[in-house]
Amino acid sequence: MATDTRERIINASAELFARQGYTGTGVKQIVAAAQAPFGSIYHHFPGGKEQIGAETIRASGALYGLLIESVIDPAPDLATGIRDFFAGAAEHLRDSDYADACPIATVALEVAGASEPLRQASDEVFESWLAAIGERFRAGGIGEETSRELSLQILSLLEGAFILCRASRRIEALDVAGAAAAAAVGRALRSSG
Amino acid sequence: MATDTRERIINASAELFARQGYTGTGVKQIVAAAQAPFGSIYHHFPGGKEQIGAETIRASGALYGLLIESVIDPAPDLATGIRDFFAGAAEHLRDSDYADACPIATVALEVAGASEPLRQASDEVFESWLAAIGERFRAGGIGEETSRELSLQILSLLEGAFILCRASRRIEALDVAGAAAAAAVGRALRSSG
Repeated sequence: MATDTRERIINASAELFARQGYTGTGVKQIVAAAQAPFGSIYHHFPGGKEQIGAETIRASGALYGLLIESVIDPAPDLATGIRDFFAGAAEHLRDSDYADACPIATVALEVAGASEPLRQASDEVFESWLAAIGERFRAGGIGEETSRELSLQILSLLEGAFILCRASRRIEALDVAGAAAAAAVGRALRSSG
Repeated sequence: MATDTRERIINASAELFARQGYTGTGVKQIVAAAQAPFGSIYHHFPGGKEQIGAETIRASGALYGLLIESVIDPAPDLATGIRDFFAGAAEHLRDSDYADACPIATVALEVAGASEPLRQASDEVFESWLAAIGERFRAGGIGEETSRELSLQILSLLEGAFILCRASRRIEALDVAGAAAAAAVGRALRSSG
């Protein structure tokens, strides 16, 4: 039950941060969305909002990290897997009425300069995603340096396209970014093969 | 003098929004940073913070749009111009201690779902940048559809890399994104030539 409350608080925070950012989300709002007693916040998170923020970033990061595995690995090849990942992201964004983009990006932009614990948590999550993508490229025979660069290129395309899609309320940027990412993977595979 | 106050308010807002976001910036803070009398805010911006937000987005968008012209046009070729643009962005970000990334992105992510006027202003700015970049590609002989896609790809790379650089406090992502963007332009020029 205690664990349950803790989880509900993290899940509610993740959704609120992705939609309206960290600064715009109050502890009261988190408590209400999580249907948790107010006192439970400081019982589970003695560090208050900043601790909730850091844990939410890490939990969302782990959850979205699993998507890399579940979307890319079943695909017939890496380029298709990457394209499927962007297509899934576009579908999810459209279905959520352009609310659910990256759970980390807004917080990373807002608080990178203001909170060192939150900046570090964002950095760790991005690095874990880069490692997970890079590992798959290396397993596909792409060299280590190219795998790292390709992962950075693809994550930049994804995060940047999310911004353009949220602003335009259209998925055009994710479509274009996904095609560019898949083509980059295809070129790297061919020149390493 | 009146115009001066107005400009100072917009300039102060632009800097504060880029560093800490729209939600985290209060009108009092804007007034203090602009060294403006408090009453002048509602004299110049009867629509309050949302009006300041929309005008700041448009003004920053126009200012940064000029950078496209001043950095890309003097370069010996378009691929070099694009690479120079990313290099300049990386230098500026590092010199500002990773504070000054894109003036629009944070606001676009934070408020896209909450304020339709601010979402529209962000969308207009991004579209104006895409048009300015695309125009240069078309002038370089690249077809219309490819020019649009290339512009979306490059702006996605730039905005996404800004997020990763702010979180990591390193310019690696902008370096990689700039190389990828320049290579994409080179390929498009060769296949149109």
